[in-house]
Amino acid sequence: MASHSKLFDDAVMALTSLPGIGKRSATRLVLHFLNRPKEEGVDFALRIQQLVREIKYCHKCHSIADDDLCQVCSSHKRNQSFLCIVESVRDVMAIEETGQFNGVYHVLGGIISPIEGKGPEHLNIETLIARLEKDGIKEVVMAISPTMEGETTIYYLSQIIIPLGINVSTISRGVSFGGELEYTDEVTLGRSILARLPYEVNK
Amino acid sequence: MASHSKLFDDAVMALTSLPGIGKRSATRLVLHFLNRPKEEGVDFALRIQQLVREIKYCHKCHSIADDDLCQVCSSHKRNQSFLCIVESVRDVMAIEETGQFNGVYHVLGGIISPIEGKGPEHLNIETLIARLEKDGIKEVVMAISPTMEGETTIYYLSQIIIPLGINVSTISRGVSFGGELEYTDEVTLGRSILARLPYEVNK
Repeated sequence: MASHSKLFDDAVMALTSLPGIGKRSATRLVLHFLNRPKEEGVDFALRIQQLVREIKYCHKCHSIADDDLCQVCSSHKRNQSFLCIVESVRDVMAIEETGQFNGVYHVLGGIISPIEGKGPEHLNIETLIARLEKDGIKEVVMAISPTMEGETTIYYLSQIIIPLGINVSTISRGVSFGGELEYTDEVTLGRSILARLPYEVNK
Repeated sequence: MASHSKLFDDAVMALTSLPGIGKRSATRLVLHFLNRPKEEGVDFALRIQQLVREIKYCHKCHSIADDDLCQVCSSHKRNQSFLCIVESVRDVMAIEETGQFNGVYHVLGGIISPIEGKGPEHLNIETLIARLEKDGIKEVVMAISPTMEGETTIYYLSQIIIPLGINVSTISRGVSFGGELEYTDEVTLGRSILARLPYEVNK
């Protein structure tokens, strides 16, 4: 919309540069900032600035951290010999949310993608290898999306990790809990039959 | 999601305080900031800070401005004796977007709403009255939403303005262009018949 104000338009432009925010939403957000006390907007800006300026990445697992080591890597309550390999920080957060994993993480920072020109050398694999022995990792679970590129990455890593005598698994794939069979894609459904599990009562 | 980072969580909280942004979107936005160069996030924060710190409101019409007078009030190309009264800055922008209005604005900063305890004394009405004579306003169009409260405000203002010998109108109400009759509410449809216009060919 025509605001006739450079300050207004600059703020709208800054907001539309964010994913999922169009010009209409951006305009609404700017008007929101103008309707609230000035301090709120200043405080908002400060939080974003502190985030990008002060956030650190864990020296060990490459996840986000407020210090040199993240809270997971520095916790005595976590099994430091059980490693979960993920693509991104977002995946760490999704798994933490489930409360089902008690080990530690390693964030690859991407997956192998020949189309995007991303090879193993662009991922945090050197630090992974160094860590496997140094930290006495006994088990590795790869929580990587079951896409073509994900499978390639899983295969590549397994060729490195298995020879070290470390137990390697991937997260299970199959029909979602609560998912209906008729809406499940063929590949998932087909594999879920091949990877069928013995039925256990009371589990 | 469990981020284990105060900086991360603070930024998510700041974003969820905005209208229309839930925790999921906020998390995605924070991860976006972390995936982009640090300078982008700093620049974004700066724009918001400048917006709330430096924006001004036009001394004449109360719309947003980068200076003491807004670009509309200080323009020689606008008809300074044709005044459009609106509720908010957002309405000014919506009307400017149409390109159909060549006059100037007066932003009330709300409408009369007994339920919200908002009376005429909370609106920019004193400056409006002072302006009507001083600026030699010849015509006033009220572009105020046709709600119960909007109609009250329109009536209140008309009682002040009409005695001054100024031509007062409201924007036309009726069926939207492209709107289908069967989906138009009864009140709008009924009034659109009462307020029917002579049919003109080639207009």
